[in-house]
Amino acid sequence: MSPLIDEFVRRSLGTWESKRSGHNLAFRHVEEVESKIVISPLPLDAPGLAELLTSHGIAIVAITSPFHMAWEGSSDWDEDATSKGECTLVPVPKDDHSGLLLRSSGYTEQIPAVGTYRFSNDGCFTLITPYEGSSAEERIWFATDDVRMRVSMMRTQSGRGVLQASFSSEIRRGC
Amino acid sequence: MSPLIDEFVRRSLGTWESKRSGHNLAFRHVEEVESKIVISPLPLDAPGLAELLTSHGIAIVAITSPFHMAWEGSSDWDEDATSKGECTLVPVPKDDHSGLLLRSSGYTEQIPAVGTYRFSNDGCFTLITPYEGSSAEERIWFATDDVRMRVSMMRTQSGRGVLQASFSSEIRRGC
Repeated sequence: MSPLIDEFVRRSLGTWESKRSGHNLAFRHVEEVESKIVISPLPLDAPGLAELLTSHGIAIVAITSPFHMAWEGSSDWDEDATSKGECTLVPVPKDDHSGLLLRSSGYTEQIPAVGTYRFSNDGCFTLITPYEGSSAEERIWFATDDVRMRVSMMRTQSGRGVLQASFSSEIRRGC
Repeated sequence: MSPLIDEFVRRSLGTWESKRSGHNLAFRHVEEVESKIVISPLPLDAPGLAELLTSHGIAIVAITSPFHMAWEGSSDWDEDATSKGECTLVPVPKDDHSGLLLRSSGYTEQIPAVGTYRFSNDGCFTLITPYEGSSAEERIWFATDDVRMRVSMMRTQSGRGVLQASFSSEIRRGC
């Protein structure tokens, strides 16, 4: 049983309208991105899930609440460009409030990634994902059942510098 | 002794360059504000401090690490307008990780305010300040010693709705 992550995934399911402000900390410019994010539950026999688990050496009994995320967004930096993507995410709880999160493709580098998640005692979900040359840190919490807040940071590999940070306010638009 | 709030104030001292993205959740527009924030320690005999404590019925032995904050900013919504302000802030610890924060003037309504702060077990400082008709919730944490993150939300009085949210990335520019 891993109620915190199960509850977190359950509350995240649905269609979200996201507004993201990306802050480049070195150059201090800001990019605005609007996107639609759809988060849906994934059945245990979903195509590709068994392969993802096998590639990480994880047994299916060790996972909980796998889900699928798809997004499509547009940026104020290039009005013609639309970024879209999708990935499968699989929590592997270590204990009630922490564990691993397998991801079929990463945000910043389009390769599979494994992050470590942890819930703080005020309900904030923090995910740290190492990439080659950097690491991503995400904090997500619910302001209300229908408003989700997300702060992401890219750190240098040493962890001592922060390259960029972004804030997303996400509003539920459907179930 | 109240090491968490003392440490938090100590790390906050200095001059910060702040970039804030304000998200209006109803209309989904974004406002960018750049400001300079100067946070400095306040001596116990600072002018006005005794009066502020008296007006709240707080004894000087109950407080710790009082500080002063001054800011000056410009918004992309009105390039001619400069907003500036200053206030005195006084932590009144209840226990090691929570307490009250007295403020000589509030952010959103220019009247004195009393907020409640709490540190989560991942070091995030959360401050909730009730105002007439709404309440403000701020989360502040340090990404590094020189990068501070701040998310603010205005809630409706019932606490069930969120009117606006903002994200500030703050970079230290001096001691």
